[in-house]
Amino acid sequence: MVERSSTVQTRREREERDAISVAPRPAPAAPVRTPEVAVGTSTGIDVTALRDLLLGEWRDTRLAARARMLDPVFHLHDDELVADQRARVTATLHALLESGAPRLPFPPEFGGRDDAGGNLAAFAEIVTADPSLQIKAGVQWGLFTAAILHLGTRTHHERFLEDAIELRVLGGFAMTETGHGSDVASIATTATYDPATEEFVLTTPFRAAWKDYIGNAAVDARAAVVFAQLETLGERHGVHAFYVPIRDESGRFLPGIGGEDDGPKGGLNGVDNGRLHFTDVRIPRTNLLNRYGDVAADGTYSSPIASPGRRFFTMLGTLVQGRVSLALATNTGAQVALQIAVRYATERRQFPGAGRDETVLLDYPRHQRRLLPRVAASYAASFALNELLTDFHRVFSGEHDTDEARQDLETFAAAMKAETSWFSLETIQECREACGGAGFLAENRFGRLHSDLDVYATFEGDNTVLLQLVGKRLLSDYGKRFTGASPATVAGIVGQQIAGGVAGLSGATALAQRVSDRASHTRASRALRDRAVQERLLTDRVDVAVAELAARLRPAGTATPEKAAELLGRNQHALIETARAYARLRQWQAFDRAVRSTAPGANRHALEQLRDVFALGLIEGDLDWYLVRGRLNRQRARAVPATLDALLAALRPHAVALTDAFGYEQGHLRAAIATGAERQRQDEARAATTA
Amino acid sequence: MVERSSTVQTRREREERDAISVAPRPAPAAPVRTPEVAVGTSTGIDVTALRDLLLGEWRDTRLAARARMLDPVFHLHDDELVADQRARVTATLHALLESGAPRLPFPPEFGGRDDAGGNLAAFAEIVTADPSLQIKAGVQWGLFTAAILHLGTRTHHERFLEDAIELRVLGGFAMTETGHGSDVASIATTATYDPATEEFVLTTPFRAAWKDYIGNAAVDARAAVVFAQLETLGERHGVHAFYVPIRDESGRFLPGIGGEDDGPKGGLNGVDNGRLHFTDVRIPRTNLLNRYGDVAADGTYSSPIASPGRRFFTMLGTLVQGRVSLALATNTGAQVALQIAVRYATERRQFPGAGRDETVLLDYPRHQRRLLPRVAASYAASFALNELLTDFHRVFSGEHDTDEARQDLETFAAAMKAETSWFSLETIQECREACGGAGFLAENRFGRLHSDLDVYATFEGDNTVLLQLVGKRLLSDYGKRFTGASPATVAGIVGQQIAGGVAGLSGATALAQRVSDRASHTRASRALRDRAVQERLLTDRVDVAVAELAARLRPAGTATPEKAAELLGRNQHALIETARAYARLRQWQAFDRAVRSTAPGANRHALEQLRDVFALGLIEGDLDWYLVRGRLNRQRARAVPATLDALLAALRPHAVALTDAFGYEQGHLRAAIATGAERQRQDEARAATTA
Repeated sequence: MVERSSTVQTRREREERDAISVAPRPAPAAPVRTPEVAVGTSTGIDVTALRDLLLGEWRDTRLAARARMLDPVFHLHDDELVADQRARVTATLHALLESGAPRLPFPPEFGGRDDAGGNLAAFAEIVTADPSLQIKAGVQWGLFTAAILHLGTRTHHERFLEDAIELRVLGGFAMTETGHGSDVASIATTATYDPATEEFVLTTPFRAAWKDYIGNAAVDARAAVVFAQLETLGERHGVHAFYVPIRDESGRFLPGIGGEDDGPKGGLNGVDNGRLHFTDVRIPRTNLLNRYGDVAADGTYSSPIASPGRRFFTMLGTLVQGRVSLALATNTGAQVALQIAVRYATERRQFPGAGRDETVLLDYPRHQRRLLPRVAASYAASFALNELLTDFHRVFSGEHDTDEARQDLETFAAAMKAETSWFSLETIQECREACGGAGFLAENRFGRLHSDLDVYATFEGDNTVLLQLVGKRLLSDYGKRFTGASPATVAGIVGQQIAGGVAGLSGATALAQRVSDRASHTRASRALRDRAVQERLLTDRVDVAVAELAARLRPAGTATPEKAAELLGRNQHALIETARAYARLRQWQAFDRAVRSTAPGANRHALEQLRDVFALGLIEGDLDWYLVRGRLNRQRARAVPATLDALLAALRPHAVALTDAFGYEQGHLRAAIATGAERQRQDEARAATTA
Repeated sequence: MVERSSTVQTRREREERDAISVAPRPAPAAPVRTPEVAVGTSTGIDVTALRDLLLGEWRDTRLAARARMLDPVFHLHDDELVADQRARVTATLHALLESGAPRLPFPPEFGGRDDAGGNLAAFAEIVTADPSLQIKAGVQWGLFTAAILHLGTRTHHERFLEDAIELRVLGGFAMTETGHGSDVASIATTATYDPATEEFVLTTPFRAAWKDYIGNAAVDARAAVVFAQLETLGERHGVHAFYVPIRDESGRFLPGIGGEDDGPKGGLNGVDNGRLHFTDVRIPRTNLLNRYGDVAADGTYSSPIASPGRRFFTMLGTLVQGRVSLALATNTGAQVALQIAVRYATERRQFPGAGRDETVLLDYPRHQRRLLPRVAASYAASFALNELLTDFHRVFSGEHDTDEARQDLETFAAAMKAETSWFSLETIQECREACGGAGFLAENRFGRLHSDLDVYATFEGDNTVLLQLVGKRLLSDYGKRFTGASPATVAGIVGQQIAGGVAGLSGATALAQRVSDRASHTRASRALRDRAVQERLLTDRVDVAVAELAARLRPAGTATPEKAAELLGRNQHALIETARAYARLRQWQAFDRAVRSTAPGANRHALEQLRDVFALGLIEGDLDWYLVRGRLNRQRARAVPATLDALLAALRPHAVALTDAFGYEQGHLRAAIATGAERQRQDEARAATTA
């Protein structure tokens, strides 16, 4: 039997993780306030236990951050001019600092606890109050200050860190340029070293090289970490980061610096994004954040990392924090939306049913289809993000900071950021529509949630670009398996993996194929709820696709650059879809681990059903892929939607409990239709018509 | 051979329409100003001719309306408080009236030209300026005033019409209630006739019966057409419409009337939506809009329509105008977004390519996949909407106003409104993301376009509800074919239609199945570009699904109401998907007719390719359906994405010409990234790096 797992996470790693997740959990911390959460559940589900499972390792940090966000000072306003919104969010940033939370990830000498994971867990909760505040905080502490911490050295920490943390200096993270967003390596701003004065000279050579979309840059920033091509002694050494003061105390640009306001945006208008440009701006040599590359007084360049490529990716590695936090934040947004929409769907009645009452929305199978698979997917996202957060913490705390761990983390983070941010946008939109006209009112949150989270799909790495990175990683891992193997062996393995068509026709091989065309619907349905079948199908979806891609891309190795680019281009769509399948596989695996870590009982049963819903939803979405490759026969393919429908009906009574387990209170939801007002109206109407 | 077309549009009707569309077109009117449109095209495509084909029958009306919308007075502002936005849009409404356009659909004695079709064609163009203005105008003239015209009689026209048209009285269309949106039949507001005073007494019995989401109701409305359950002499006669003054000159509610502001919304904040309630509000008997139902002074009820059900649907039939206009407007929104995104995608470069320049976005196959199928779908929508508009005009002008024509029109409008509004939202979102960070700036339009058009998916009939109406119509038409047929015949026909699985396995029947598993990829690909194959596949998608549904729902006829409701529920998802397939079939048919009405040449060739892209996109989206039913074998299914990719690459050089043919000018697009600024930046950057 061929070792099948070509996915980044090897089987051994998975088993290791399983061993961890079934090990006894740490004793629960002191009880935390859990008001409202248990309301409206009489289905045997222990909502608090479920909530804690979703909260994962940083449960208490998260609950504390959530409780903080109940304070109306942090809440967005519905009707506000951009300037007022910006001013309010800037003020709120100070309120956030007063809570102490933003200091968490920094070293103890700066008031922190070096708690990288806890910091991100808490940070995501800000979304319930105001996504603008989350991003403003992210710009200040997660990008600007974190760049000083991670790219700078002792001297920079001493000179700049405290002012940045304590908001005495607001700063921008000036990486993106109008002409280059996700392609950071191609930015055109230059920093040329002048040994005569021991200064760097920053220059913006043309309009496309203006820094753009830079948070804090339009108004608040007094300084910025500016990324530029470092040049010294006539030689270029690639992109480096520089600490650059940009405005004086009164807010006027310093000499040589100019800029523009990006103006109103589709959302996040509490953040003042803007543009910056530099005309012979001189900064001291020591303002180079020199952890990964330094220039001596005489202009000599040095770096602890010899390879310019690796150096570049190491410096950009600090961006992974942003990706993890955006993935977390978008799932939070989706959960708020789902908790509102499900609550409303269980109260709202529309159109006469069979009895004398009108039918409750969530009793319509279509409505179940709209919402419940998304509840399942959000569970999957939560479990996967908990694992991502743990991985992140282990790397960034230094607990397990190897090159390989960093690369794995980056792949995992890229996959989750893309998958979760898209999932979130689609979910918020579906929830909005599922609530009809009420869903369009600002008092019910959805519109603003969508427009504020919209840009999460393209900033901190465009989703499409990130998924290509993931896809390329999958391909390179796949390639490594064949290093040194004979071409015949490779052909054999690849042949076997991509021969789904043949295997399906002969009906001989795949586990997922065991049920013959003549087998009963019931058997097909039962098989689809078998976790081993799900795992096999979802793993095949990735492994076979990677093998197919590898086979199709093989000629690129010996082709001209044009031919190679053309070949890659032709397979770009499949590469991205494969990366998405990989992201979803990781989610399913995390979900499955969470299920198996749960003791038998009502919660485990519901979790199993939710995992099955998640798996079947994924399989249904890729049904043509499985059919074309003979991975599913027609009989079983037909059973997929039917099995899914039956599962949704079975989950229907648990819908409120399962979304209450997201754990948000009325003060987080702040949606008129999630307060029970609808039920009250229905009761009143029923009483009036009965009377 | 069994007659296969169970779709609403019979073959005869289609042939009739073909005959019309290939008949010589009327001589073109005087040349219309077409600046900018032909810019940047050197692909042999006649952009103006293509534009005219898209504009259809009301070309000149549309172009005039478009030209009007270049006036900045109509343009939305990006950063505005709700109150200011409302005030501005109200003022703009008067500017719109000054243009005379809003009078178009009304009778000559009121300054109009009875031009129902032209009115809607012009109306959709307002979206380019400000969707709020479109909806505000729609509320005032399309709903409030149109209800007086269509539901009232001579006396009402004389008393109310001129004031409404001339904006001396702004009005609401008070149909929806908090408790009942799409289910109008169940609204709870009552109008009880009092013979003693010859008045109706309007009452809101409970909170859920408040009128809600009513445009103009929060501030501007002085009157409203109120829908209520008519009761006279102790008997209920169903929903009727009443003309009700609600505010005095100074804007204070009249006695017995109260209300609330719906507050800020997810979009369309230029429209003042609000709530209304009535406490024993008395209006004269003659304020009943009595075209379809009247109450004599003594309280006797009479109606020209005996069946209460038919009466209800006839009164609601006036809503069809709203649906047609929303479908048109959302396609306009999608086209503006596509014209911007495609222009940017042909200028923007990102990541080094094989040569020395970076690669233009639209040269990435994934980017082609994101945008070009949507360009094709928008063409399909345009052609289908042109047919819808013609049908609408024929019914509403009285040219062809039969019961059957009205029912067909309602089905067609429901299908198009749902399909097009969803398509539009998804397209705007895709365009926004395809433009990265620039797509998020207000200066590039997408965010606001999305949030303003968001509610189009659920108002004037929730898309999900509308599609169920369409689905039920398909089922009832299907049922009619079997009236009087023996059960054996029915079983035979149904069997044949749903036996796709068997037919597929034996490889004997379907045209779409002719290519065997061993046939070459090229042959499969060529077959998929055969319009007859496309038509057969897309028709099968509807017909077979309807037959399957009919077979599954058959037991409902003899079941208990509970069982019947449960059975319908279980098939609700399939019913809705079938209705969507029907909507898309209608679009494809219209597209195909448009292609065949075009003379051979570059335009026809491009249109053929676009039609193929549209068809293949639909087939790819439903690939699992075709595979499961043996309608496509695996060989051919595999050819679908590959054929689509090849077509997209072939269309790539025409992308700008094809979207310029939408015909919007810079003054409509008003997007910084669609002005050529990006190309200028790229050129400047290239010059600098080459130098």
